[in-house]
Amino acid sequence: MLAVSLNDGVVTVAEAPRPSRPHGHALLHLRMAGICNTDLELQRGYYGFSGVPGHEFVADVVEADTAELVGRRVVGEINLECGECSWCRRGLGRHCPHRTTLGIAGWPGAFQEYFTLPERNLHLVPDSVSDEDAVFAEPVAAACEILDQVEIPLAEPVAVLGDGKLGLLVALVLAGHGCRVELFGHHEAKLALTAPAGVIRHLNEEGAPASFDFVVEATGSAEGLMQAVRMTRPRGTVILKSTVHGSVALDAAPIVVNEITLVGSRCGRFAAAMPLLSAHAIPLAGMVSARYPLAQAAHAFEHAARRGTLKVLLLP
Amino acid sequence: MLAVSLNDGVVTVAEAPRPSRPHGHALLHLRMAGICNTDLELQRGYYGFSGVPGHEFVADVVEADTAELVGRRVVGEINLECGECSWCRRGLGRHCPHRTTLGIAGWPGAFQEYFTLPERNLHLVPDSVSDEDAVFAEPVAAACEILDQVEIPLAEPVAVLGDGKLGLLVALVLAGHGCRVELFGHHEAKLALTAPAGVIRHLNEEGAPASFDFVVEATGSAEGLMQAVRMTRPRGTVILKSTVHGSVALDAAPIVVNEITLVGSRCGRFAAAMPLLSAHAIPLAGMVSARYPLAQAAHAFEHAARRGTLKVLLLP
Repeated sequence: MLAVSLNDGVVTVAEAPRPSRPHGHALLHLRMAGICNTDLELQRGYYGFSGVPGHEFVADVVEADTAELVGRRVVGEINLECGECSWCRRGLGRHCPHRTTLGIAGWPGAFQEYFTLPERNLHLVPDSVSDEDAVFAEPVAAACEILDQVEIPLAEPVAVLGDGKLGLLVALVLAGHGCRVELFGHHEAKLALTAPAGVIRHLNEEGAPASFDFVVEATGSAEGLMQAVRMTRPRGTVILKSTVHGSVALDAAPIVVNEITLVGSRCGRFAAAMPLLSAHAIPLAGMVSARYPLAQAAHAFEHAARRGTLKVLLLP
Repeated sequence: MLAVSLNDGVVTVAEAPRPSRPHGHALLHLRMAGICNTDLELQRGYYGFSGVPGHEFVADVVEADTAELVGRRVVGEINLECGECSWCRRGLGRHCPHRTTLGIAGWPGAFQEYFTLPERNLHLVPDSVSDEDAVFAEPVAAACEILDQVEIPLAEPVAVLGDGKLGLLVALVLAGHGCRVELFGHHEAKLALTAPAGVIRHLNEEGAPASFDFVVEATGSAEGLMQAVRMTRPRGTVILKSTVHGSVALDAAPIVVNEITLVGSRCGRFAAAMPLLSAHAIPLAGMVSARYPLAQAAHAFEHAARRGTLKVLLLP
């Protein structure tokens, strides 16, 4: 079978043996995978990664302990929890200190024809949900995480900064949830993708100072955080979605003076994402920039890294 | 009467006319005032301040609309709210955009023999509370603000970083509230002031990574924030009490990956502070480094700015 590898920033594709299936796990056959910014960060050398990347996928179950799973189409939670520590017992296995993470840390990823995941990580994909929508389950779950962490009253205006993949998905998910979303970005065509969801778009505009109680920072840029703090009202909340590596210059004084809350937000529960996908509540059309076969993964990574690219998909 | 002035960083003391009392206000005669780090920041030129500083005080009411106030010993909220905007209506006049602030912005301060404040800002000081304790009402209220903003379960370990005035008061207030406080600092004698409150002291120790769910940053240093984030468990909370001016280098990635919440925290409600002072729940002995008459305010400011100094008091 074909498997993509990342080593010292170089993407290679080679034949590899089909992985063996540990007890309690399912053997999965890839239908479709998405390249995430995290994959590009792994390529740039953060986290000292080497191995098979990939954590956004739709796959068919080929083998499993649970007979009913075999032949079903699934997506899957990316964190492999220990299931026993205090984090896992609180339903927060995403922070389990003993976890491995599919295609990110300690567990071979989805950019290969066959891979494995614990059965308990899997979620069935309803027939009504296409592969093209289901492959967004993981980033949609990450956007949903905001709603798990912060109570945003319905119809409350929320500013989302950034019209990259992350910002667009956050805007679509929050709008799907019923928030009044205002999206700030620099690309007219990308902003337009959120029009069907009723998102108010701001092209090349700075938001007015202290104009929102909730601001989501999804720019991926070092300046985004200060812009978010400026736009937030006293006692308001900034949700940090971008991981910008290295140091960001932050003037902490306005955070203290205006008693602003900053909330870091990462992966989310698939259980929150699946109903949104099933209900077709998130207009994902236009979010895909390109498709490549696994064999052309190097080109796919290159394409995904180009400015302005949205989701790049890999197919077996 | 004598009044202290700050102009271009220079502290002067001069005779000035007794201020006239606006309708709804009380004319106050100073008993005792405290020099706060904010006063030193005003001197250093932040906020472009010039005028009479001072916002920590105990005073006697000399004149007031309400006859029962006259002759009473009081402390006072430092923000003069409009009383009508949405912030004031929510009980958050401390964020009223139309506010002035005693000795900080737009309202002459307490470092003079007589000054005025709205009657509604005043809190009576019970006879059992000494001037030396009552003068801490404002910074104790600021420490109490943490408990208004963040729900900290009783007996939950809380790390406080910094053994300056602010860190010590925060440690004493949280311990008085019933938290299990661990204080990290660099001065044995200062740390020892919190021993009567049962605070666990760490001299020149770095806290272990991811060891607390609640960490209060009160170091006043640019490095404090990163140390606080390091010491906080996933999904934990860092409370920012220090205002460090200028940019702080912040690596935002661990905040996102560990989904840490940062909460900026400034002034607090005197209504929360007064019961603690009345109950003598906060051992404030040893918090005063020196006392000066108003006439020697320049020396007092100099003393307050020296490293290692705790509270410096001014007396008429």
